[in-house]
Amino acid sequence: MTALALAKEQGFECYTLSFNYGQRHDAELIAAEKLSQQVGAIEHKVINIDLRAIGGSALTDSNIDVPEEHHEGIPVTYVPARNTVFLSIALGWAEVLSAHSIYIGVNAVDYSGYPDCRPEFITAFEQLANVATKAGVEGQKLTIQSPLMKMSKADIIQQGMRLGVDYSQTISCYQADSAGQACGKCDSCHFRREGFKQAGISDPTRYQ
Amino acid sequence: MTALALAKEQGFECYTLSFNYGQRHDAELIAAEKLSQQVGAIEHKVINIDLRAIGGSALTDSNIDVPEEHHEGIPVTYVPARNTVFLSIALGWAEVLSAHSIYIGVNAVDYSGYPDCRPEFITAFEQLANVATKAGVEGQKLTIQSPLMKMSKADIIQQGMRLGVDYSQTISCYQADSAGQACGKCDSCHFRREGFKQAGISDPTRYQ
Repeated sequence: MTALALAKEQGFECYTLSFNYGQRHDAELIAAEKLSQQVGAIEHKVINIDLRAIGGSALTDSNIDVPEEHHEGIPVTYVPARNTVFLSIALGWAEVLSAHSIYIGVNAVDYSGYPDCRPEFITAFEQLANVATKAGVEGQKLTIQSPLMKMSKADIIQQGMRLGVDYSQTISCYQADSAGQACGKCDSCHFRREGFKQAGISDPTRYQ
Repeated sequence: MTALALAKEQGFECYTLSFNYGQRHDAELIAAEKLSQQVGAIEHKVINIDLRAIGGSALTDSNIDVPEEHHEGIPVTYVPARNTVFLSIALGWAEVLSAHSIYIGVNAVDYSGYPDCRPEFITAFEQLANVATKAGVEGQKLTIQSPLMKMSKADIIQQGMRLGVDYSQTISCYQADSAGQACGKCDSCHFRREGFKQAGISDPTRYQ
């Protein structure tokens, strides 16, 4: 949502994309559709892609619990190649739309355990995008924009507040309930809550 | 099928992956499952991914006809970012399996209209794979193998015949019927038929 608000501020006409990939809840899908409409995205799509058929993550395999304490290294909530799959599908849609910029809200600073949330991943995907596609072959440069990459969670929240993002409606939690309420215990909740604290902003997140 | 036979010959334990992505027929999915079993693949998966939601190709948009004459340039059968999406999902499964080689049967020589069938695409994807994943970060090198890349269609057929591939059962046609019979008219049929002719091998393809 913050990445979308930043893209809108840059003057882009925005098309938004969510993935129903077998995550633990659909609250984030409902929120993404509603918020996309609110900010005036031209079209919002939800793509179904069953990453549970592959598994290998606490988010896509019900037999692996979402941890409630932070551990060093790559966490079990890492979904193998997830952001690569997401960006690939976004790349396909970008080609159909003749769009030349793809925004993704990945962030490397507070939470650097995910290989596919790092600057070198985005750079490598951008290089791929420019040889993988008709647009690339025909010389139209595609760029992958990750404006949150080097911000702290506090910076992200401050940027979002400046742009009018309603954080009572956004979902970060790995295991939100059907009403969109956060667990308050997972890593994602932890880093989000710390972000509000450091930004000196009262946390509007709806907790269970 | 020929790429799989070559991987088997190299001594790999093979896991095979097909995509139900909204293509015009499912004959290729049925054939892939059957042939995977025949050659002793350990597991065969079919992933559902609705690329019709994106469209932009004769293969994923029923309003665009499959052409029956060859034209220069990137053909309308090009599916935006399709091989990028396929390899991304294969990459996810490879991570879960701790596999380090992904085989893909792309071929650049006879039919060079597809951006995502070129050597530079495979090289760029391999670079991405090694920064996108846990395996890559932990120093296990992932490789993308495209053994057919620089072969002619005739070479591919000769390799396959040498390894016992039954080409009466493989599907190349863009619009095969439900019995797995080829149209004999699309580009894919054309290049396949020419391949048998140049290889001096009687064409066992089942035509409509």
